[in-house]
Amino acid sequence: MQNLKSSAIVVVGAGVTGLTTALVLRREGYENITIVAKHMPGDRALEYTSPWAAVNYAPVSEKGTAAEEWDRLSWAEFWRLAHESPEAGIHIQKKISYCLTDSGKDKDVWFKDLTPNYRFLDESELPPGVKWGKECDTFCIDPAIYLPYLKIRCISQGIQFKRVNLSHIKEAFSLHGNTSGLASVVINCTGVLASKLGGVEDDSVVPVKGQLVLVRNKCSGMFGMWGAKDWPAGESCYVMNRPFGGGTVLGGSSHQTWDPTVDMDLAKRIMQRAIEACPELVKPGEGIEGLDVIHHSVGFRPVRKGGPRIEVEELPGNLKIVHNYGAGGFGYQSSWGMASAAVQKVNMAIRGSSEASTLL
Amino acid sequence: MQNLKSSAIVVVGAGVTGLTTALVLRREGYENITIVAKHMPGDRALEYTSPWAAVNYAPVSEKGTAAEEWDRLSWAEFWRLAHESPEAGIHIQKKISYCLTDSGKDKDVWFKDLTPNYRFLDESELPPGVKWGKECDTFCIDPAIYLPYLKIRCISQGIQFKRVNLSHIKEAFSLHGNTSGLASVVINCTGVLASKLGGVEDDSVVPVKGQLVLVRNKCSGMFGMWGAKDWPAGESCYVMNRPFGGGTVLGGSSHQTWDPTVDMDLAKRIMQRAIEACPELVKPGEGIEGLDVIHHSVGFRPVRKGGPRIEVEELPGNLKIVHNYGAGGFGYQSSWGMASAAVQKVNMAIRGSSEASTLL
Amino acid sequence: MQNLKSSAIVVVGAGVTGLTTALVLRREGYENITIVAKHMPGDRALEYTSPWAAVNYAPVSEKGTAAEEWDRLSWAEFWRLAHESPEAGIHIQKKISYCLTDSGKDKDVWFKDLTPNYRFLDESELPPGVKWGKECDTFCIDPAIYLPYLKIRCISQGIQFKRVNLSHIKEAFSLHGNTSGLASVVINCTGVLASKLGGVEDDSVVPVKGQLVLVRNKCSGMFGMWGAKDWPAGESCYVMNRPFGGGTVLGGSSHQTWDPTVDMDLAKRIMQRAIEACPELVKPGEGIEGLDVIHHSVGFRPVRKGGPRIEVEELPGNLKIVHNYGAGGFGYQSSWGMASAAVQKVNMAIRGSSEASTLL
Amino acid sequence: MQNLKSSAIVVVGAGVTGLTTALVLRREGYENITIVAKHMPGDRALEYTSPWAAVNYAPVSEKGTAAEEWDRLSWAEFWRLAHESPEAGIHIQKKISYCLTDSGKDKDVWFKDLTPNYRFLDESELPPGVKWGKECDTFCIDPAIYLPYLKIRCISQGIQFKRVNLSHIKEAFSLHGNTSGLASVVINCTGVLASKLGGVEDDSVVPVKGQLVLVRNKCSGMFGMWGAKDWPAGESCYVMNRPFGGGTVLGGSSHQTWDPTVDMDLAKRIMQRAIEACPELVKPGEGIEGLDVIHHSVGFRPVRKGGPRIEVEELPGNLKIVHNYGAGGFGYQSSWGMASAAVQKVNMAIRGSSEASTLL
Repeated sequence: MQNLKSSAIVVVGAGVTGLTTALVLRREGYENITIVAKHMPGDRALEYTSPWAAVNYAPVSEKGTAAEEWDRLSWAEFWRLAHESPEAGIHIQKKISYCLTDSGKDKDVWFKDLTPNYRFLDESELPPGVKWGKECDTFCIDPAIYLPYLKIRCISQGIQFKRVNLSHIKEAFSLHGNTSGLASVVINCTGVLASKLGGVEDDSVVPVKGQLVLVRNKCSGMFGMWGAKDWPAGESCYVMNRPFGGGTVLGGSSHQTWDPTVDMDLAKRIMQRAIEACPELVKPGEGIEGLDVIHHSVGFRPVRKGGPRIEVEELPGNLKIVHNYGAGGFGYQSSWGMASAAVQKVNMAIRGSSEASTLL
Repeated sequence: MQNLKSSAIVVVGAGVTGLTTALVLRREGYENITIVAKHMPGDRALEYTSPWAAVNYAPVSEKGTAAEEWDRLSWAEFWRLAHESPEAGIHIQKKISYCLTDSGKDKDVWFKDLTPNYRFLDESELPPGVKWGKECDTFCIDPAIYLPYLKIRCISQGIQFKRVNLSHIKEAFSLHGNTSGLASVVINCTGVLASKLGGVEDDSVVPVKGQLVLVRNKCSGMFGMWGAKDWPAGESCYVMNRPFGGGTVLGGSSHQTWDPTVDMDLAKRIMQRAIEACPELVKPGEGIEGLDVIHHSVGFRPVRKGGPRIEVEELPGNLKIVHNYGAGGFGYQSSWGMASAAVQKVNMAIRGSSEASTLL
Repeated sequence: MQNLKSSAIVVVGAGVTGLTTALVLRREGYENITIVAKHMPGDRALEYTSPWAAVNYAPVSEKGTAAEEWDRLSWAEFWRLAHESPEAGIHIQKKISYCLTDSGKDKDVWFKDLTPNYRFLDESELPPGVKWGKECDTFCIDPAIYLPYLKIRCISQGIQFKRVNLSHIKEAFSLHGNTSGLASVVINCTGVLASKLGGVEDDSVVPVKGQLVLVRNKCSGMFGMWGAKDWPAGESCYVMNRPFGGGTVLGGSSHQTWDPTVDMDLAKRIMQRAIEACPELVKPGEGIEGLDVIHHSVGFRPVRKGGPRIEVEELPGNLKIVHNYGAGGFGYQSSWGMASAAVQKVNMAIRGSSEASTLL
Repeated sequence: MQNLKSSAIVVVGAGVTGLTTALVLRREGYENITIVAKHMPGDRALEYTSPWAAVNYAPVSEKGTAAEEWDRLSWAEFWRLAHESPEAGIHIQKKISYCLTDSGKDKDVWFKDLTPNYRFLDESELPPGVKWGKECDTFCIDPAIYLPYLKIRCISQGIQFKRVNLSHIKEAFSLHGNTSGLASVVINCTGVLASKLGGVEDDSVVPVKGQLVLVRNKCSGMFGMWGAKDWPAGESCYVMNRPFGGGTVLGGSSHQTWDPTVDMDLAKRIMQRAIEACPELVKPGEGIEGLDVIHHSVGFRPVRKGGPRIEVEELPGNLKIVHNYGAGGFGYQSSWGMASAAVQKVNMAIRGSSEASTLL
């Protein structure tokens, strides 16, 4: 075992995917891990998606798929962290979802057994215009805490960091911290940059822009609203109260584009809908003028047509790459499960066999 | 959720079962937990089994049972700890098992997929007299580190401790740290004392004595040997090299008795067999005089005829008790799984329903 | 003791000063601490100075002053953190300082006994144009790690956080997390905003702009250069290689202004001088085109004419405020000492006496 | 700096002195530390003093001595731990001391500024027979938590452990964990075994036996009583309520002897006096039959005539030993200061100069 676990491994990317993957590698016993990244926690480049995310747990995976398994594993890990490590910035609270159309009514989701106190709302509990709704306990995450928390945990566990702007994925093989030779495996966690990085250039990866408003106003939980026929395409509404003074984040939008500008008309609609879904954000009678804005922001979800890519690729010269990218809007909520799947691929790549990893 | 999770819960017992159960309660979100115990980590009373255990992972559960599930969950937790928290005192190393009889040959165990590098030994690798053998990577635990580690983690997470010698399990309901009323649930983790504690007095619980020799000599892993026809009943042989200067522990024996004396003849046989199974313990040519003994000890496994008891009992006056005792010789290696099962019972007892807990 | 240490205390500001002050309060035993802040770690507003700082240990305090004591205490704490908690992002390395004028030659600094391996350079070690130089081991800090690290430590220790935009310092008295009444003491750690916050409006506090370039290029330590007669006023040069992939930060400039724009001409001079002081940043023959820029930034040091203000003020109605602001360019390197001094003032304010705090 | 701090250092002994010394070495930047010990936390041998100690902070050092400085530094460290790391098992509470003779009346101690709320008792507060008394806030420590806590912290910081029974101190030089050559320095923290270990055999080190009773009864603080003319020589009285269910420890006695037996007559006197000093231990009207004994124990304080030895010794062959032993009854309460002094000696020994260490 010793020999395999001392293999040099390079993780490319220091977003939530790269940092989590490195921690799962460490947990599996790998001793020799280096994260190489163009951007690090603390940076605010737009091609670095993780700091810009609103984050909650609301799976979009379908029952019976690998993606369901990723979400299950991730829930278990986040639930543990929320209770054992409050400093990770994970906040369990009630989430209420309102639907403005009849579609989806009475349909259960597979994760109803995970999220406590899951139930459909009574009609008497629905605001005007809402056709149906439900609630459960789930979590949101403040990336301003959780992302540096992950890096801090990596440092504590001896994972090394290098700041490098790669032109080609191959360069990563010689960037390992401790080793003169080549890394045994490179793990590609480059997110939306997978569309641009030499040797990957995956044109099924596209940026899907989301726009947020962070406000100082507080509320008692999380709220969502969707399904309105008269809202422009790609728009919905969510409100997430972050823990530890993180403020409340208002979203949501989804548009495939690299346009980095904040659309202030959209911002206005986001704020108006947020107050509709959660009137307690402002004082009675107030509108969006009652919101105390910290900042407006945009981010680019690393969507991959066909879904995430978690697989081994072998380049000429016995260069083994494990890909783990393309998580779209579920990068955080699937992170522990996807990292676990990727580490199984690493195990296989290193052992040169199909022997699976033992566990999360 | 808040209301349920602020319920006052009292755990009786501060052995590995009680401490782990408290930690799983905390992980599940319970905020108001008190451990009440006659003995605490650091004590050396014989009726307090945990400090006296040699500990490794070698399940005796049968495939398809709840016990298998306990062992699987526990493995996952210990594996994580071994890699993320070396200070817990969990040591992954190779274990070689030698069998002196043909019985069991070629039979796989269900956990062969958990323990890495599992394989049967070639005949050329067998010492004289050994009929067959196998090896895998697994872990041993030093209770001198792990038991205080668990208490330290409990303290860090706000779990309270009280030192009380109960006459009757009912007394625990009024011993909660923060509350003037009665605890919502008492969890009975009293181990071998379940045979004596008023209100429990389970006469299917019996002490099964084990005797150990702890030596300063080192070796390169763990070793086991069993199946000899000419060994007295209840005797086998194991050798476990503990991490971080913990020494090497030599066992094993199993006899149902409360006799607290160290049997020095048995000790001699244990030491002789240990050297046979693992000659590297001493210099070539040396016998047991080459062993540098730290101490001899005995402990009493809390065996329960019919297996562990994990269930809800309701006493008159709406007093709800969840039992979690009777783990015999697998108290450590099943601890996280059994605690998880017990906490599911707590959830049910508190919610007054059959809704299961969400996860480990 | 219990009564005093359960006093409600509100810290205003979540920069390095506020977070450190809260941790020292906690260490002194205060149990009931809330941080109220307009900006939190993760924010990038310009009036929030901490995330924009380059940070090293290079005291400007004079021997025999309180400021010397602050710097001594802070050194001890940072030195401990650097060795015990690498995840705090504190990096001990060699710093070489070059002076371009004869002024200051052969003059020792009081902290030469703190910073190991302190010595003057031989003439043979001086680059062309440099009149004299010296070196020692000291530390730099990456705020992208250290600032969230402080918040994470606060959360772990039960310190509460609220995101509020105060109009007047008085409002803080009713913002304590746990209490219906007024806080016993409010600590004002508002940095450069002390010039604007109602009830403080200290017009001796002025913003002194610094401009930085963060690059991916690496070097082997820290470098400084100053004293050039032909450099524009307020300009010097420093290069600090940050730990854990933080990149290398290039500075420095000091101009009293609220102008938020990045001066690209200044940026060019900063980069050119950095390469002069530390040629290894780029490949031989390269100039500033060899620098791989992560971002340009500006920050506003909270300079107070006359030095920092650490004192008790009592407003009508028995409202006690302890001020701790005005640290200018030494907010990090004096932080633990200044916080300790401020907490002594809190002790006095609460005990209503001149009894000093016991220790750091 | 790198070269010196990577020097191989071996600490002999894993009592409170050895473990603390290793942690201070680590804090000073030493990277290559191995603790070699005959006994480890968890052991209960009588020649291993640390687990048997009652522990509080009540200095016996004289003002103006190095010992005062050790006690000051230690106080600062314990105070910090008590507030930042409750899991260390350090308990701050009120201590009341009663004196049965007029001697010492009105005399202040130098540490009155360290221990909060220090004051002499009013006559009205004195029990019958007590001539004078005083009180302050100070701490006691439960070794059952603190000793494994220290080891756990050592492990977390990469300090290595080896279990070896040395015949001669010289053997330690070749026992370093990572190195084929000899250790640069060996630190001798062997406590009472310094009287026996080959190459040390310091006959000014004598065992001073103390006897304790640990009970489950609780009380509200710490109590001391001394100065009775009719008590047998070497006897006094103290009562310390330990944190986290540790029970309450009753002492004290001081007799120079290796006699390992528990003197049950002395035990009875200890229990009677404890109830006198702290009647709340039992119910009104009860005597020692009201005490719920966990165990009786004895321990041997490593007293050195002339005081502790902290100095460098050089054996032939350039073998450098730093001694740190002989702390008598103040091994815990002086531990951080003595370790700091010893590490300064290590710095000097390694640098071959008189350059002092920079700090605690």
